[in-house]
Amino acid sequence: MNTVDLNSDLGEGFGRWTLGDDDALLGVVTSANAACGFHAGDPSIMRSVCTRAVESGVVIGAQVGYRDLPGFGRRFIDIEPAALRDDVIYQIGALDAFARIAGTRVQYVKPHGALYNAIVHHEEQAAAVVEALLDYDKTLPVLGLPGSVWLRQAEAAGLRVVHEAFADRAYTPEGTLVSRRLPGAVLHDADDIARRCVAMATGQPIIDIEGGELRLSPGSICVHGDTAGAVDIARGVRAALVEAGVDVSPFVT
Amino acid sequence: MNTVDLNSDLGEGFGRWTLGDDDALLGVVTSANAACGFHAGDPSIMRSVCTRAVESGVVIGAQVGYRDLPGFGRRFIDIEPAALRDDVIYQIGALDAFARIAGTRVQYVKPHGALYNAIVHHEEQAAAVVEALLDYDKTLPVLGLPGSVWLRQAEAAGLRVVHEAFADRAYTPEGTLVSRRLPGAVLHDADDIARRCVAMATGQPIIDIEGGELRLSPGSICVHGDTAGAVDIARGVRAALVEAGVDVSPFVT
Amino acid sequence: MNTVDLNSDLGEGFGRWTLGDDDALLGVVTSANAACGFHAGDPSIMRSVCTRAVESGVVIGAQVGYRDLPGFGRRFIDIEPAALRDDVIYQIGALDAFARIAGTRVQYVKPHGALYNAIVHHEEQAAAVVEALLDYDKTLPVLGLPGSVWLRQAEAAGLRVVHEAFADRAYTPEGTLVSRRLPGAVLHDADDIARRCVAMATGQPIIDIEGGELRLSPGSICVHGDTAGAVDIARGVRAALVEAGVDVSPFVT
Amino acid sequence: MNTVDLNSDLGEGFGRWTLGDDDALLGVVTSANAACGFHAGDPSIMRSVCTRAVESGVVIGAQVGYRDLPGFGRRFIDIEPAALRDDVIYQIGALDAFARIAGTRVQYVKPHGALYNAIVHHEEQAAAVVEALLDYDKTLPVLGLPGSVWLRQAEAAGLRVVHEAFADRAYTPEGTLVSRRLPGAVLHDADDIARRCVAMATGQPIIDIEGGELRLSPGSICVHGDTAGAVDIARGVRAALVEAGVDVSPFVT
Repeated sequence: MNTVDLNSDLGEGFGRWTLGDDDALLGVVTSANAACGFHAGDPSIMRSVCTRAVESGVVIGAQVGYRDLPGFGRRFIDIEPAALRDDVIYQIGALDAFARIAGTRVQYVKPHGALYNAIVHHEEQAAAVVEALLDYDKTLPVLGLPGSVWLRQAEAAGLRVVHEAFADRAYTPEGTLVSRRLPGAVLHDADDIARRCVAMATGQPIIDIEGGELRLSPGSICVHGDTAGAVDIARGVRAALVEAGVDVSPFVT
Repeated sequence: MNTVDLNSDLGEGFGRWTLGDDDALLGVVTSANAACGFHAGDPSIMRSVCTRAVESGVVIGAQVGYRDLPGFGRRFIDIEPAALRDDVIYQIGALDAFARIAGTRVQYVKPHGALYNAIVHHEEQAAAVVEALLDYDKTLPVLGLPGSVWLRQAEAAGLRVVHEAFADRAYTPEGTLVSRRLPGAVLHDADDIARRCVAMATGQPIIDIEGGELRLSPGSICVHGDTAGAVDIARGVRAALVEAGVDVSPFVT
Repeated sequence: MNTVDLNSDLGEGFGRWTLGDDDALLGVVTSANAACGFHAGDPSIMRSVCTRAVESGVVIGAQVGYRDLPGFGRRFIDIEPAALRDDVIYQIGALDAFARIAGTRVQYVKPHGALYNAIVHHEEQAAAVVEALLDYDKTLPVLGLPGSVWLRQAEAAGLRVVHEAFADRAYTPEGTLVSRRLPGAVLHDADDIARRCVAMATGQPIIDIEGGELRLSPGSICVHGDTAGAVDIARGVRAALVEAGVDVSPFVT
Repeated sequence: MNTVDLNSDLGEGFGRWTLGDDDALLGVVTSANAACGFHAGDPSIMRSVCTRAVESGVVIGAQVGYRDLPGFGRRFIDIEPAALRDDVIYQIGALDAFARIAGTRVQYVKPHGALYNAIVHHEEQAAAVVEALLDYDKTLPVLGLPGSVWLRQAEAAGLRVVHEAFADRAYTPEGTLVSRRLPGAVLHDADDIARRCVAMATGQPIIDIEGGELRLSPGSICVHGDTAGAVDIARGVRAALVEAGVDVSPFVT
């Protein structure tokens, strides 16, 4: 039977500020990338995300980022690798406290924003994140982009690596994401997005940006929830997967 | 045989800024109150304190504070109790990550600065800190001021409570600290301080601010290390205790 | 002819996070209390508020607060008065830079949140805010609650004092606000709110919480814009004032 | 008569943390690059630096940086140019408030740390800093590295540009700084440093890293004060310049 995980970013408010519809997403996804306070998320939000994830049967992952509330973790920071490693450990440890209180544990790690993008290529920062995982818990799987430097390093270091695909992004024939700066990079049609996700999850090819066929085999598909429309799209993806007989369940069990 | 713990605040730098002589203190104390990033301490400092504490055979405690880098945690903040509870959990969890990596665990909790002072009297904030401990780990002892609201609450909640005395502070006949605003509140003579510590640790009375005898039985004595003079005083305290046959060792084993 | 100012808090987002509908409010109010980065507002938001306020003919005031992004400035902080004074100056100076670039100046000061509430009673913090104004610009008027310690101090120091009333808050017979913790403290009926504002602006009494008549003569009425409903209420207030022949215009000219 | 300015970074503590010996430096330099709160410096420190600079007859410049207290502004941040521009304006405006209170004004701008280094090459960020100056005050001179992109842009925009040299750094034959990663990049001999500064200020060549002669004509020489040794070196530089008949005075008058 075909199986796939659905992941999304949760807990990305801060203090008085809210972002996204966590409650709606917890009814859609199977894995929650919880912000850990460095780019978003404060301790009470983190606690709440953990509690509600457990109630919803959703697995908790640490969405670690640069220490950058003003930039929401979307600005590359040329931080020394040792400091980055320790920043990542700090965030996982803090989130793990709330996960334990909620009766579970942090069960995977997915970097956020500019850090996610940086370690696709940046060897030293990628190594720092891998080192953080090795230091904290060698059994934690990591979620990331196929072909990225950091997943290659993680695999070489013995970490379990899970590939993710993006529900609403166009792909090049090589299987990399089309840059957001190019036309057609982001998909908006809910039905089209749902169909692509079903294809990905059932071993069928999707159509790449140049019209060719591309086969992806993601362990997890990333959906968004920062707008009402995004939540609807995410719901559509899940419904279509279930309809197609795909087992939507966490990649960690 | 008489036994007493010596504790001190460590890891209170931040980024480019240093404070105190951690290396010297790790040769003196048996328990290190490690800052957790909210009033001082960044992740790399926390890691370093944990590593070096383990190397020195010093026990690690979480020195939790208000989120207040500009005020070094010395400003009372009227934070809602639930948010305070979660802030405390976040800090302990983050420090515990580094303690585990260093091969140990956070083994006690001692609030810092304005939080330490607030929960001597503030019922709701005291309850929040106690609740944080109950949530995170009911077996963690807490270090605090005898007679404080928060130790009373902690004891009632089943937490192990350890009383501390201050090496360089004058006491009232009732056993409370003389306010820093009053003359004579802080002691400066190294020999006098060392003698008082020996008295406290051996069941002898010390002289209170009014000249009477006061018997304290601290499980731990707090020394400081933020100036060169303070480190010398701390060394003198330890030497005098050892000289007097007191077993200087951690209150957690 | 009767005249009154309408003021509201603007620019209270931060980075990725938005709050309130600034564009709608700029069509309603005559004075904008712009957040200055300490409780909310980042430099680009501040610039944008200043630019758009000038385009809308709205006067810019500095909404100064405690340095407290996690608590949105709603937590009392027991900061030393000299540090508070300097924090206030820093905020006004920063906002003034953007006001100048937009072709105007910061034209008044209104403290935010917990600071607003604290200096109703707290003599030392009130004095610190007054001192900040005296240091920075003695000609800046201050907007605040009638009967507050800080307005009394500001007046004694020679600052121009402008009284404000709250459109949606119930009043005691003494003219103070009914605590939010009590039933009936916050009004929700748009027509009722509009009628009360017209009464305030035309020298008519409003009905206090105990059913008696209360005469307020505010120089400015505070409206809110943090929800869609709040914006509608604010629009209703302005329309009713105009309808009643009240000149809705800034208290600074 | 030969004339040169001496500049140094001041006010780089934060809250409880101190850094460098500002009082000593104010007796040595003629221009103080005051930190503005984003990489270091809090409002009370900024006020104090301004007050004491005026007392010492030292000119105040804004040492603007990335918003990065944990990294002390030493980490390149890939911030969007418009946000950087506004961050720079915010910092200058805040410092200017304290300068005005002290009876003067911010009289020049010198970027700090990673921003200083980035805009030697980074066109967009350089343009953002230039734009900030044009927005805030077109008459403010800028202090920077000869040959840098940002000084070229500043000059083209009509800003007054002042070249600085570093007292304790080795130069390549092309007049650029030898990378700190290479041996010999930083000079330590106080006499040698003083002699080089006298040469620079009197139109004589210095010896570059390859042994050739290099003629620099700095409007200002940068000295450091973050260690006791650095302050002594700075004092030696000033004494040697005075001894050599050089007029040590600000480049702004």
